[in-house]
Amino acid sequence: MRYKLTIEYDGTNFLGWQKLNYGPTVQEVLEIAVSTLYGRKMRVTGAGRTDTGVHALGQVAHFDAPDKYTCFAIGNALNHYLRDFPVSILQTEEASSDFHARFSAISRSYVYRILNRRAPPATDRKRVWHVPAELNVEAMQEAAAHFLGTHDFTSFRNSMCQAKSPVRTLDVMDVLRADNDEIHIKVQARSFLHNQVRIMVGTLFDVGIGRITPSRIDELFDAKDRTQAGGTAPACGLYLVKVDYA
Amino acid sequence: MRYKLTIEYDGTNFLGWQKLNYGPTVQEVLEIAVSTLYGRKMRVTGAGRTDTGVHALGQVAHFDAPDKYTCFAIGNALNHYLRDFPVSILQTEEASSDFHARFSAISRSYVYRILNRRAPPATDRKRVWHVPAELNVEAMQEAAAHFLGTHDFTSFRNSMCQAKSPVRTLDVMDVLRADNDEIHIKVQARSFLHNQVRIMVGTLFDVGIGRITPSRIDELFDAKDRTQAGGTAPACGLYLVKVDYA
Repeated sequence: MRYKLTIEYDGTNFLGWQKLNYGPTVQEVLEIAVSTLYGRKMRVTGAGRTDTGVHALGQVAHFDAPDKYTCFAIGNALNHYLRDFPVSILQTEEASSDFHARFSAISRSYVYRILNRRAPPATDRKRVWHVPAELNVEAMQEAAAHFLGTHDFTSFRNSMCQAKSPVRTLDVMDVLRADNDEIHIKVQARSFLHNQVRIMVGTLFDVGIGRITPSRIDELFDAKDRTQAGGTAPACGLYLVKVDYA
Repeated sequence: MRYKLTIEYDGTNFLGWQKLNYGPTVQEVLEIAVSTLYGRKMRVTGAGRTDTGVHALGQVAHFDAPDKYTCFAIGNALNHYLRDFPVSILQTEEASSDFHARFSAISRSYVYRILNRRAPPATDRKRVWHVPAELNVEAMQEAAAHFLGTHDFTSFRNSMCQAKSPVRTLDVMDVLRADNDEIHIKVQARSFLHNQVRIMVGTLFDVGIGRITPSRIDELFDAKDRTQAGGTAPACGLYLVKVDYA
């Protein structure tokens, strides 16, 4: 039986999702939990890798296991084995055998949280990007519209990104004022390139502080040069919110 | 010159606000920061003591110091000295010499955050009370109305509470469904007794799971007996949001 898990985690103390041989990752602690439950070595496949320090409110993963426990029992057991880690199983469902957490996904949604005030965060340390300088949200929203649609995102991906094509289609990019001096940037696409969200946010930051104008985004697309776009915004502000399937 | 500070903190790793001689408190790290700035031993007076593990989004304190720095400079300097602690100065203002953070306060507002879902919190560990059982928010809201107004809160204060009078006037108590499976309980009063908010929340929990009915609150007031009310809800869900002055 194939099972689908929806997972929340605080990425602060993890070296991202993907298993490594030199430090703690979310996939690793999850595989240990699943392996403990079934009494043998198990593999868990995620919808997408999140980087070191990136959080998730709705990461999705799947694993194959004998049809031995109810979904309710699996969720409870995994949360029990995960109790020492900031990782929580929100939902456990039976999936069809052709369901694949990564390849069946039709869209991924992220939110990026900026705390835009002079005072540093106290209750939300490592969970927001603290920007003391006042940001022009209207200009950022105007710039966001330039990212929408299908583009060659070469300027907006990590120079080490291994994706074959730099072309992606961005379906949603909204810049919103939220409570408590926060600015939320919501994005959605079928898939993203390595660091794409964080580099787009770093470039919106340049717009927000007035370093570049919104129309500069079009020139950055044309440049196809990572060094011309903004910096990579810190991982701690980024949340994988949702993965959608057909 | 008297200065008024508005302060945010994560109470998780503090033994509350009030200075002790056996562990870290918010008042202590704040006094160390202010003392560092002025180069001599300084005292800071808070609007109210928060208990171990209780958070604040808007605690208020005052201190007296030579008129040597601008408020802007004081705030920046204190945040610099506080950088290793989850404590942040949101605002620094000049106050009149008869302003007193505690005695001038005319109202205090708290919010209590309950995470009401089966799965434990991952990104908000130690920042919400996790209640896996489904709560009846409508019944809790109905019960909340019974707390409003002036009462003898003997049943709803810590048995060690040292306040002379157990009579308090509750101006606001709202139970609201919030995002992400959260329930927020908002309360406001001129002042509160020791553990009053947490015991009221613990009693609303009894209503929410159907252990008692909303009208039972009136009987609990009449009983004047702490042992008959609900348990004391965990500190981690409680936030001092705001202190108001005339």
